[in-house]
Amino acid sequence: MHELIIGGAAATLTTLSFIPQVIRLYRTKDSRSISMTTFLVFGLGVSLWLAYGIIIRDIVIILANAVTIVLTAMIVVMKVLYR
Amino acid sequence: MHELIIGGAAATLTTLSFIPQVIRLYRTKDSRSISMTTFLVFGLGVSLWLAYGIIIRDIVIILANAVTIVLTAMIVVMKVLYR
Repeated sequence: MHELIIGGAAATLTTLSFIPQVIRLYRTKDSRSISMTTFLVFGLGVSLWLAYGIIIRDIVIILANAVTIVLTAMIVVMKVLYR
Repeated sequence: MHELIIGGAAATLTTLSFIPQVIRLYRTKDSRSISMTTFLVFGLGVSLWLAYGIIIRDIVIILANAVTIVLTAMIVVMKVLYR
């Protein structure tokens, strides 16, 4: 049972961790030190995690990665907007 | 079987995605738009993923997260060094 608590905490933290980055980009309108390649490749990887979650029908993997895709997309869009 | 290929590709991409960010920080010595909170919380989350991998004895989760911890730590250290 306690692996579920640790896995759930891990998924929650890695997913929500990108919120401060989104807020910082939005507030400062500065994205210079962000690597576009990192967030494009990360977004592709997270999309594959979502596909994996759908295939194995794991709702935690599906939800965590769906939220992370949205946050990653916001970072990529702001990287384009705020050069 | 094909969920293993998708899961493996997902783990590889999300892990290696941070290499360009590490290189960019090292080259430019500029970390201004990086959120420290994001990478500290992300690092904590990835550490819990590693613990989860150890508990359920999954070598793919262990390896992917061990590499991600190293890359995340490099980003945090450069965030401190290059303000």
